[in-house]
This record gives sequence, C-alpha cells and structure tokens, in this order.
Amino acid sequence: MISTAYLDVGQQPSGEPARIPVITIKGQEGGPSVYLQANVHGAEIQGNAVLERFLALCRQRPPKGHITLVPMANPIGINQKSGEFTLGRFDPISGDNWNRQYWFQPDIVAPFCQAHLTQDDNTITQAFRGLLQQQLEQRLASPWGVKTGQHLALRLQQMAVEADIVLDLHTGPISARHLYAPKYARERARRFNIPLTILMPSDFGGAMDEAAFSPWWQLSEQFARLGRAFGVQVDAFTLELGSQEKLDVAQAERDAAGIARYLEVMGCWPEGTHKVAPETLHACDLNDYRALYSPCAGQIEYLAPLGQPVPAGAPVARIWHYERLGRTDDLYTEVSLPCDAIPVLHFASANVQQGTELFKFLTHTQPL
Amino acid sequence: MISTAYLDVGQQPSGEPARIPVITIKGQEGGPSVYLQANVHGAEIQGNAVLERFLALCRQRPPKGHITLVPMANPIGINQKSGEFTLGRFDPISGDNWNRQYWFQPDIVAPFCQAHLTQDDNTITQAFRGLLQQQLEQRLASPWGVKTGQHLALRLQQMAVEADIVLDLHTGPISARHLYAPKYARERARRFNIPLTILMPSDFGGAMDEAAFSPWWQLSEQFARLGRAFGVQVDAFTLELGSQEKLDVAQAERDAAGIARYLEVMGCWPEGTHKVAPETLHACDLNDYRALYSPCAGQIEYLAPLGQPVPAGAPVARIWHYERLGRTDDLYTEVSLPCDAIPVLHFASANVQQGTELFKFLTHTQPL
Amino acid sequence: MISTAYLDVGQQPSGEPARIPVITIKGQEGGPSVYLQANVHGAEIQGNAVLERFLALCRQRPPKGHITLVPMANPIGINQKSGEFTLGRFDPISGDNWNRQYWFQPDIVAPFCQAHLTQDDNTITQAFRGLLQQQLEQRLASPWGVKTGQHLALRLQQMAVEADIVLDLHTGPISARHLYAPKYARERARRFNIPLTILMPSDFGGAMDEAAFSPWWQLSEQFARLGRAFGVQVDAFTLELGSQEKLDVAQAERDAAGIARYLEVMGCWPEGTHKVAPETLHACDLNDYRALYSPCAGQIEYLAPLGQPVPAGAPVARIWHYERLGRTDDLYTEVSLPCDAIPVLHFASANVQQGTELFKFLTHTQPL
Amino acid sequence: MISTAYLDVGQQPSGEPARIPVITIKGQEGGPSVYLQANVHGAEIQGNAVLERFLALCRQRPPKGHITLVPMANPIGINQKSGEFTLGRFDPISGDNWNRQYWFQPDIVAPFCQAHLTQDDNTITQAFRGLLQQQLEQRLASPWGVKTGQHLALRLQQMAVEADIVLDLHTGPISARHLYAPKYARERARRFNIPLTILMPSDFGGAMDEAAFSPWWQLSEQFARLGRAFGVQVDAFTLELGSQEKLDVAQAERDAAGIARYLEVMGCWPEGTHKVAPETLHACDLNDYRALYSPCAGQIEYLAPLGQPVPAGAPVARIWHYERLGRTDDLYTEVSLPCDAIPVLHFASANVQQGTELFKFLTHTQPL
Repeated sequence: MISTAYLDVGQQPSGEPARIPVITIKGQEGGPSVYLQANVHGAEIQGNAVLERFLALCRQRPPKGHITLVPMANPIGINQKSGEFTLGRFDPISGDNWNRQYWFQPDIVAPFCQAHLTQDDNTITQAFRGLLQQQLEQRLASPWGVKTGQHLALRLQQMAVEADIVLDLHTGPISARHLYAPKYARERARRFNIPLTILMPSDFGGAMDEAAFSPWWQLSEQFARLGRAFGVQVDAFTLELGSQEKLDVAQAERDAAGIARYLEVMGCWPEGTHKVAPETLHACDLNDYRALYSPCAGQIEYLAPLGQPVPAGAPVARIWHYERLGRTDDLYTEVSLPCDAIPVLHFASANVQQGTELFKFLTHTQPL
Repeated sequence: MISTAYLDVGQQPSGEPARIPVITIKGQEGGPSVYLQANVHGAEIQGNAVLERFLALCRQRPPKGHITLVPMANPIGINQKSGEFTLGRFDPISGDNWNRQYWFQPDIVAPFCQAHLTQDDNTITQAFRGLLQQQLEQRLASPWGVKTGQHLALRLQQMAVEADIVLDLHTGPISARHLYAPKYARERARRFNIPLTILMPSDFGGAMDEAAFSPWWQLSEQFARLGRAFGVQVDAFTLELGSQEKLDVAQAERDAAGIARYLEVMGCWPEGTHKVAPETLHACDLNDYRALYSPCAGQIEYLAPLGQPVPAGAPVARIWHYERLGRTDDLYTEVSLPCDAIPVLHFASANVQQGTELFKFLTHTQPL
Repeated sequence: MISTAYLDVGQQPSGEPARIPVITIKGQEGGPSVYLQANVHGAEIQGNAVLERFLALCRQRPPKGHITLVPMANPIGINQKSGEFTLGRFDPISGDNWNRQYWFQPDIVAPFCQAHLTQDDNTITQAFRGLLQQQLEQRLASPWGVKTGQHLALRLQQMAVEADIVLDLHTGPISARHLYAPKYARERARRFNIPLTILMPSDFGGAMDEAAFSPWWQLSEQFARLGRAFGVQVDAFTLELGSQEKLDVAQAERDAAGIARYLEVMGCWPEGTHKVAPETLHACDLNDYRALYSPCAGQIEYLAPLGQPVPAGAPVARIWHYERLGRTDDLYTEVSLPCDAIPVLHFASANVQQGTELFKFLTHTQPL
Repeated sequence: MISTAYLDVGQQPSGEPARIPVITIKGQEGGPSVYLQANVHGAEIQGNAVLERFLALCRQRPPKGHITLVPMANPIGINQKSGEFTLGRFDPISGDNWNRQYWFQPDIVAPFCQAHLTQDDNTITQAFRGLLQQQLEQRLASPWGVKTGQHLALRLQQMAVEADIVLDLHTGPISARHLYAPKYARERARRFNIPLTILMPSDFGGAMDEAAFSPWWQLSEQFARLGRAFGVQVDAFTLELGSQEKLDVAQAERDAAGIARYLEVMGCWPEGTHKVAPETLHACDLNDYRALYSPCAGQIEYLAPLGQPVPAGAPVARIWHYERLGRTDDLYTEVSLPCDAIPVLHFASANVQQGTELFKFLTHTQPL
C-alpha cells in the first residue's frame, strides 16, 4: 500500500510554503522501518531518480517493513538558481551547508543509560527514540525561532528518527559513485555495489547519516561502559550517486537495485531477489579521504580519470595559465600527489582560483 | 616574431587592474590583419586552448600578415564565481551580457559616403577605420564615465577595428560546436569545419562579430545606393567551440587547424597547408535558430543528442516531476518540437523552472 | 466589494507554483478601470506597503470604478536570494530585466486604423483592446514555449490591458522618490506629489508602463495621420517610491494618498477627497536623465544628498583607494559633473569596480 | 617612520594576484607590537576608513611601539559582487566564512609547558611565538595544498602572531557598533568607547581574535596547572564598527580615537592623549548574545531601534504577508522576545524566508 502526504518544512519569501512529498510504502509485517531521502542539496537531483526506480521495484515485489521515501527533500535549495546552476549545497544567505544542521546533544546519553540499565532491549529502543524525538521538539519550539536550514533538518530528522535504516542520497560535483559507511556496518555496505567507500568513525558532525546512527552508537558504547551489551540499532549511510545537475535514469535503475540488495540483508526481501553486476570495491578511512587544493589559479585540464588508481607523482591535473600565452615557459603547472590514490570527484568548473578544491581522493585504500 | 603586451581594461574593487594579455604575431608582408579573442564570457574557457594551439601552428609555420591574439579577454567575468561556477555571461551587477556592449552608431555612414564617393578604395578603407576609431575614442572620453562592460568592449574593439578578420571564440552551455557567420561570408565559413552554422543578417546588435563587420557592410550598401561598388572589407565570425567550464585540448587542436584552414583562403598560408578530417556541415538562417522554453518546471532528462537531426514530434526532453512521486500518472512531461530540427545546445543544469531555455535548435536546415 | 483571487504565473523547480494575489475592488459605476501592481523587481517591496495603505483608503471611502491590485507581482524574483539580498532586478539565469519583457508588436496598428477609421470611439477602444489581448494570447500559445520572465510579463499584461490607468510601483537602489511619466500626461503627473519626474517619449521599450500606454499613443498618432482625432485612451506611470530592501509604512501612507489624489482627476473620487502636503516638483526629459559611471574602482563616500540640486563641478562622490593607505597622495579620487544636476538615486553598495553606475541625475531640470 | 609593502595572499582565476597592502609604523622603542586589519569580510569596508583615520592620528602624534595596518585584507572577498552587493562574508564557492579559517592546534601546549617550565617569561614568549609560526608554516607547506580561505587566513595570521595586540575590524549587516572582548580583557575593553560588548570565553573557534589570544590563554592556564604563573601575553578584539556596504568617515574618526585611547593603556601614548565623548556601555556574555529567527516568511518592518533596550514581549518586528492583501486578518505577524534585550544588529534585507536571522540581541546585560 503506497500513499503520499505533503509536509511543510518552511516558507518562501513570497509566502508559498516549502513543501516536501512523503511517500509511504506499508509492506508486510516483519521487516524493518526504512527512511530514504534525496536532494537535500539542491543541485543533487539524481537521488530522486533512484527513489523513483526503487519505488518501481517495490511495486513489482512488495517488501516487508515500512518504507518512507522523501524525494525533493529541500525545496528551498532546489529553487535557488545562481546563474544557470542550482546553488544548492549551502544556504545562499548564511553559507550554512544544508547537510550540517541536524541536531543531537550527547549529554542525554549517560543519564539515559543509568536510568534504563536493567530494562529489556525493546523498551530501551522505544524509550531512546522517544527521548530523541523530545530533543527535536524542544529545539523546534525555541522562543527564539529556528534557522531556515535547521528547521528543514529537524523536520526531516523527525521522520528519520523513527527508522531502523536511514539512507541519504546525494551526489558529488563531477563524481564517481561513492558511499559513506560507518565502520560498524562495513560488512553490509558491500551490498550497495558502490565502487568507492569512505569508512567513517561514529561521531556526530551534523550530517543526516551521523544524526541517524551516532546517538545509537554512543548509546551502545555507554551501555558497554556500564557492562551491558546493547547493539547499535540503526544503520545509516550517505550514498553519493554520481554528479550534480545531471539525471541518468539507467544508472538510477542500477543503484535502486543496489539499495534493494542491501535491504535484502536487513529483511525487506528474501536474499537473492535483486541482481546486480558486481563492481570492484575500494575503501579507505575518513582520515585518508583527502582533498587536493589548487596551488595556483588557472584553467584546469583534469587528467586523472575518476575511480581509477593513480600512482604517487603522476600528474592528476594540468593548470593552464593562458594569460601567459606568448611565453614559451610556465604556460602550465602540473599537479601530482605525494602518495597513491583513487580520484573520487573533481571540481565542477575548469576555472579556479588558488586554493580551490580540485579533487578528492581515497588514499591508503583497501578492498571493502 | 611574437611579442606580448598587457592592456588595462578596467579596475577591480580591490584596486587591482583588470588586465588582458595581447599577443602579436608579426608575419611576413602580404597577409591580412587578423584579430582573435577568447573568453569574453567568463565561463567559456575553451577558446583560450584553441588560441594556444593556434599559436603553436604559427610557430611551426609562420603566417603572412599581422595576427593579434587576446586570450582571457574578460578578467572581470573570469574572476566572478557564483557557487562553484563562473558567472560569466553577464555582469553580475547589471545583468548586461558582456557580448552586447560593443559600440557603433550608424548615422556616420551616409555623410561619410557622400564625402568619399570619388576616392579610391584604400583611402576609403583607411578613412573609415579612422572614423570608427574616433567614434570609440569619443565614447571612452565621456565626462559621465563608461559602464564596466562597455569599457571593456571598447578597449577590445579598438584593437579589432584595425583588423581585416575578426574571430571571437565562445562556447555554449552544454553545446555542439557551432558558428555564427554573416551571410555574405557563407562560402568561406565552410573552411572552419564547424558542423553547425547560423547565417546572420548584417545588422548591428551589440556583439563583437557584428561590431566588426556591420559597419563595413552598411558602408558597402550605402555606396551601392550611390552607385559606387565597394566590397565588404571585413570578415567576422563568432565560433562556439563546445561547452562552457570545460577544457578539451585535443579538440582545441582540431579547431585551431580549422581556423588556420579558413585563414589560408584569406592569404595567411598557401592553400592546403593545414589538414582536417571534414565534417558534415548544416546551416540555417538566424530566424530559424529557435529556442525551446520549458513548458513547466522539473528535473530534465535531455533525450536528443546534440548535433543529430530529430524529427518533428519526437521527444527531445523528459521533464520529471519527482514531487509527485507516489502517483502513477503525470510523473513526467515529454516535450517535442513542431518541426524537424538539429539540437545545438542544451541548458547546463537538469533543474529548471517553467520557461527556462531548454535547448536551441537549427530548423529548416540546409547544407552549408 | 473587495475580493481576492490567485493566479499562477509560473512554476518553481520544486514543483510549487509561482502564484500572485489579485485583489479586486468593485466600486460604483462611472469610474475608470485601474490596474496597480508592485514588486515586479524582487527587492522592491515598498510598493506592497503602498498598495496596502491604498486599499485602506478605498475601504474608508469607496471609489468609483473597478480597481485591481497585484502586490508581490513576481514571486520568482521575490524568492531569489543572493547572499542576504534579493537578486530581484533580473532573472538570475538569463540576466533579463523582469521589467523589459512585456510584449507589443506595432505592425498591427496601421491595418487596424485603416479598418476602423469610421467607427465610433467606444467601438474602436473595445476592438483595439481585443486585438492587444489576441496578440498576448498568441504569444503565450507558442509551440516553442515562453521564457520565464516573458511568461510572467504576459500574465500581468493580460490584466493591465483591460485598464484605463496602469500604475507600476517600483523603487530605486538607494533612492529618492521619482516618477516616470509619458509627456502627454505631464499635467496629471503633478497630482502624485512625487518630487522628481522623468518625462518619457511614448515609444515601446519593453517596460510595463510603455506596454500600457504606447500602443494607444501609436494608435492615436496613426489615426491623426489618417485625419481622425482619437485621444490616447490610457494613462500609465512607473512610480519609484524610495529604496529597495526597505519597508517604510509611514511614507507608504503618504504615497497612497498621492495616488488617490491622482485618481481623483480620473474620476475615482470627487476632487479634494485626499490631502497631501505638497512638495517641490522637478522634472527633466528622459534624454537628460543621466547615469554617472565610476572612473575607477574603490570604496565610495556618497557626498551629494539625494533630491537636492548640486552645481556643475562640485564633488558628488569621493572614491577611496584604501589599498594605497600609507601613501600621502592619491588616496582618493573625487568625481564631479559637467553640468548642474539633481541626484535621484545612488548605487546600493559602497564597494565598486570601474564603470559601476554610481548615481543617476536629473539634468536640465524644469518645474513639473 | 611609515612604510608600505604588498603581500600576495592568493591568485585570482585571471592570473592576477590577490595582494594586500601592509603598512608599518615604526614608533619609538618601549611600546607594544600592534596589528590591525580591516575588511576580511568583503562587504565590511568601514574598518578601512578607521585605519585611515588612525594612521592620521599616528602621523600627528607618533606612537611608541611597532604598528602594522592591513586594510583591504581580503581582495578575493572584496572583488566578489553578487548583484549590486559584495558577497563577502563567505567564500562563494565553498560557503566557508572567511573569518573561521585561522589555524591553531592546541595539542602543542602541554608538551611546550613541560619543556619550558623553568625558563623566564621572555624566553617562553619568544619560544611560543616561534612554535606558533612553525605550526602556520607547516600548514602552508602541505603537499595537498591549502584551501583559498585558509591560505589567506594563514598569511594574515603570520603577521598577527608577532603582535602583542591584535584588532580585527568588522561590521555587522545593519548594525550598531559593538565589540567582542575576551573576558580577561574586560577592564581594558572599556577604553574603545564602543556601546555594546560581547564577553567571550577564551576557546578557539577559528576567528582571528581567538587565533590571536586563545593560544596564549591556554598557555597561561596550562602553566597554572603546573604551578607556574604566566599571564596572558596577547590582547585581541573584534570591533564591529557599524553597517556593511557603508562608509562613514566622521564616525571612522571617532572610532580611530577610541582605538588610540585603548592603546594608551597599552603604552603607545601617554594616558589622556586622545579624547572621546564617552558613551553608555552595555555588555553580556557570549551565551546571552542571542539570534532571533523569523517564525515565518514575509516582508519585514524592523521596529526595535538598534542599541536601545526593548522589554520582553514588546514587538521588535512586524512581518507583513502582502500576498494576503485583501484579507482583513493575518496580514502581519508581530514578533517579540521572551526576555529584555538590546538589539545589536538586524538583517540587511526586508524580504525574508522562514528562519532568516532577523536580529541579534544582548540579553541579561550588565554595565561593561
């Protein structure tokens, strides 16, 4: 059973609401509660196509569990054009990244563990969820109001906090498909069939995936300190499914199947329901995921193909200085890396200033 | 002999000049005076690479004539980032297109023809050039100052007005290579080997190519009215050599060869000096060069491949309405054309509002 | 009787409509049909407050005639933030000024006059209105779609074309109150009590006021050529009621009274119903309304108070070059004018590049 | 003795350097080393005028000590226009605030204290300065490059780290003059004569003032833990001297005198050299410095005058909903505060979305 509702998450200066669609798939009992959202960064529209293809899979073979889909999750970011492009990674007024404003204050964990030490797992899970919801409600009710981006984040988080699994669909600028996975979920992360993975520690830094899993991980750690075993109850991932400002429906279909395969492990479908052609999977720790900043300004010829290993010292970009045309020397600068690496994404423009983030790389890679 | 100078064309708020490089190739006598510029729109950097490759050709085989190269012709536009992209098609303060501010007032033509009716061609050419320069100087000397974009345009135009041939190198947003050619130069336009051509009338609308050829065409017409034959003395073209925000050095080399082949006809090299693999050349009149505006907002799947004919009625774009996800109907709108056409370029983003220019098309095409 | 409807004028990328409110005041018979709109430029919000105060006047003393109010007339422009400010004067995608996209093709006038030469005034007026509506409908129905800004303009124009009087409420950047009035309506323009007036020729250049009056003026001229007297049937003005990004409700109340006083002449109220404290009224021709462009970049100290005459040669701005701090000379440049003038508005920022429009001035002024 | 040098702090896409002027006043011996900078946020130009007026004071009465002035400290931000305004608070590419990228890693403090426990104050001060410089150099030398904003910050910090006193001159959007002062310097903060003060803890959060004082405060605390008294060696303040995008030379002169008065205490001049008309000085803790976010979208009438106390419950802003014009209810929303407060600044535009920061307030104020 599939139903749609609309939720107000803000209001535009013209008075029109900023509304998001919330699609609910009520599957058979016995499956997990799953929350997927896409397009929190306004230019990153590919995730919507993945949700559309994923919904088609669900129509074909109804899943177990309760699945919530939120495409077009940031109407304010989506509506914000800047020149021809969508200025969607941060609020144009404040510069705040739309995906750094989720809310969790960790000082609730210790007293909660103390108070619930002897209770059964189910009771704990429900009580902690209630506590998280309460924290969000208090924040939303501030007499000083709530900042635009945080208001949106809190409304999304109110839905996500009810889920056992949270998937946040993004893209890079010009980008190979990659995945942010918490280390404890590394095994399951393979199922997405995404070639490049960044393995994250379990701290909270303001992003949706962290907001979903970090409280539960901290809970688990704190209970462990008190001598009680309590597993991390929530899986959460950020999937970066290609390049911004682009729609590739064929690739969306493949990535929808990857998501379904991951959800098979979690109980939404019997193992083996969905097939994908497996890809080679590389991973590295978040600390080894490195940005390369341009040593000078210029016009960039990106040399290193995304997703393919490049050895230390090999040129990854040629920076042209066309204002020196007519000279025979110094017409370009070549940039290389101090170690082997796999390029994951590069900057969206070939015209840069000194210090522009040219590339991001996996380094010290390992098989996932 | 190749030399470089730098010319101030403005001043940035920080006090730094806006400077352009001017490269001069002094070839053997007997050739034309040629002026090439690139990157007047800040995001359109490919032309710089073409100039670099063209200069390499000139070093290999020195041309006849005097050639001036101005890469990076708009430092203000090049420096203007907006999000990750370069906001370079119009001045971010005024909205004025950088390529619509060249200057020509046609009321000088009639009295000039009257006064020079009986003089020889050379005298006329020199005198008219002087008159055009005088018009530019007067404009630059206005006691009310000169607007940023026009000041830049006038400084570039002071160089271009001295040339027999003017080539202005641009790109589209996501674009096939195409050419704007004045109708009277159609024959010669073939030599560039650019697959798609828009044939222009010879009026003045503020662009560099028009500023270069239109005064001479108007002169020719006016002399004809007075019974004197006087050919159009200047060739000028706008070359759109691919997509903005991109650098493709291999294609730049091919387009540099195309330019050299055109210049062979004009006397810079012996016929047959430069070779290119010929392409199929389509053309249409400017009136038949049509924009398609999006009938609704949404996320765009661009279906029609650039440069390839598409029949009337065939879908050229699918506009997704992901906010309707969960519904089984109306999830997308397909757009088609009322006539056969060849898509030349499409919008740079897949996220559009109603009325965004989705595509531009050649219609009623003919072989060039 | 006051009623409100909402009209879709576009669609935002998120799928939400761009909607405008349309408030209708149905007064007693015998008065004119009046159309007022505000905020077509997104940052120019003061006009909304004037409409609100004007509606309060109408509630107090019901007018004769039919009055339509459209506040918040450009939701797309209003929603477009760029940093803290509203990027509302032009479409951020195309650079097109929102107030230059109204539609009129003059080649309909001559055949219309020929065909209606002997008909009575009322019949002519109705028929010409119908013809204008038809032109708008045809444009809206283009199989190639309609550009965002023109679509908005056409929907507004469809309402305005039904009116005898059209008032378009704008503001300048940092600005004294001023008025654009067609020369033939000079006498009536005094009633607005706006201190500075620019007297316009009656050509069409794409703005709302011109779109409203120019067809009727051209009709009148063409009939005159054919020997038939037919007065200009429509009055239209652009009122610039202060500075952008600001709301001044007290001043809005005064300007609402000025509008009501003008409408008294036109039959909406008995003469003398509304009172205002008269101001000194200066005017000049559009040709004498001059922009001053900055001769260099720098940080501006605006010296000339808006609305007050400044003699030729007196400094109107001091341009500081703080990057030269430490030097004792050339630390600033002073700018003055070649003739006497009254400053109307100045640039909104004190940080400029060379060629930024610093000020606009009335010159060769005369009493209105 | 006054001298000027220029320092490259980056490179613009056009190839032009981003350069800053560095003015050095070498006074008589015996005074402190002072570093002042202005305009790190591109739109905040008033500080340049204050430096200019301050330099005039120094010319009149030469100070003791060594003073460095850096006006126009962020040429990249100053050159970045967005519409008419200067998009200068954050990097338009990354959204990073230009004043949050200074560098300090606190893990150097503990081993340093251990190693220098028994040395004399002067030796410690010089050694710690050297260590801070080393940290900056290492960061600048990263083989992965340095991000645009951090590169600028590091170059400025290399100068600031040599100073005993660091003053960073900013402005708010539309703003009363206010001051950020570290709590330990509260007494001295009074001398600036700035009416509103925020008292800061001494942690490091990435801003210049914190980068200047926090290492020394942490050093002092760590030595205290080891039983050695070592005072905080550096004073640093952020002065917010009015509104962005504005130049007020008369007020700049008054604030230059306030800075000079503060420097009298520090030994640059004899006490009483500079006079100012004292103002009433309010202060509150950083925790009590509160932002008010708009509960809904709309057009804002700012009601509370800046700098003047407003009681709890009194309206501070009226949010108009002009799209509801024609209705008699709900035409505006009034916003008030849960406690007494003094408004410090408000948003620069009257056109806001839900969640826009409308105001910032001192609450729980106390005399400074």
